[in-house]
Amino acid sequence: MPRVSQDHLDARRRQILDGARSCFARFGYEGATVRRLEEATALSRGAIFHHFRDKESLFLALAEDDAHRMAQVVAEQGLVQVMRELLKHESHDGGEHPADWLGTRLEVSRRLRTDPDFRSRWAERSEALTAATRARLQRQREAGNLRDDVDVDVLTGFLELVLEGLVSHLAMGLPADDLDPVLDLVEETVRRHRRTLP
Amino acid sequence: MPRVSQDHLDARRRQILDGARSCFARFGYEGATVRRLEEATALSRGAIFHHFRDKESLFLALAEDDAHRMAQVVAEQGLVQVMRELLKHESHDGGEHPADWLGTRLEVSRRLRTDPDFRSRWAERSEALTAATRARLQRQREAGNLRDDVDVDVLTGFLELVLEGLVSHLAMGLPADDLDPVLDLVEETVRRHRRTLP
Repeated sequence: MPRVSQDHLDARRRQILDGARSCFARFGYEGATVRRLEEATALSRGAIFHHFRDKESLFLALAEDDAHRMAQVVAEQGLVQVMRELLKHESHDGGEHPADWLGTRLEVSRRLRTDPDFRSRWAERSEALTAATRARLQRQREAGNLRDDVDVDVLTGFLELVLEGLVSHLAMGLPADDLDPVLDLVEETVRRHRRTLP
Repeated sequence: MPRVSQDHLDARRRQILDGARSCFARFGYEGATVRRLEEATALSRGAIFHHFRDKESLFLALAEDDAHRMAQVVAEQGLVQVMRELLKHESHDGGEHPADWLGTRLEVSRRLRTDPDFRSRWAERSEALTAATRARLQRQREAGNLRDDVDVDVLTGFLELVLEGLVSHLAMGLPADDLDPVLDLVEETVRRHRRTLP
């Protein structure tokens, strides 16, 4: 048998992740059966689980992808920009709904709560986003753009809590067309204040 | 047959709601089967569904209870106080975990997204909380305690988004012991600012 090249392995891995993401978004975590994952990826279960130990590992790899992608946006433009992009995609029509994928994050909440191993694997994968957010805020503070009366860790926790609220809001399909000024307020809250006081 | 008194009906309704809440918290929305609801309420399915049309109606009645209870706290002390109480209960040990019940709200997120009828019934029941929050902020503004450079609707949306984030955070069992100063920041954000500027 010929040796399989790294490029081939990477491409196969990508094919599995892309198909699995659609499948989870469409059927939910529980509803994404092995048979449906096979259909969505156009691969056999043998091929899928050669690359990922089990469905949970596949799901967590997607969560890790998200965290890394968001961390990139955070490094350049901050966590509020991540929220603005979530909101913008939300208002687009047609095709797969990004919020359907976000919904799977909520669907596993019970599992996260009751399964410490799953929770710690999840937390590991979210750590990239927290680290990027904290580093960005630290740089902004050094540049004098951040308010200096609140600890960077508190500001990080604040932004992450609002992001969790937004993910939940969008995933539940609640109206989101009036959230732009809310995000403006969130952004202003972490910045150095320049408005005049009474 | 003797006529059943209103008191008796109310007590029975209460018994069903209390038992169902424990049952949903323990087994999740999907896992709360009719048999388990019977055990948890110590009533037959006939008795349960005499009071509530179906499991969905029972669940929505509990969500409505929550919204009314929260709306009472909001009227007297504001939505940030609701969040502080969620956080306080979280750190208590022993007995049923309130976050287990919160988790069911996330569990139904997919249903909320894909079932417009369910979503509108849910939204109706949450409306009491939004109305109470807006009314409280309006009174605080008239009393001069609220910042006056941001619309009351935006401040309402901001507080609700943070609450959604907190519910999601607690329901997922993520660490919450460092969230007090985050809630202080949230409270300060809607208040009239008194701190001096550089």
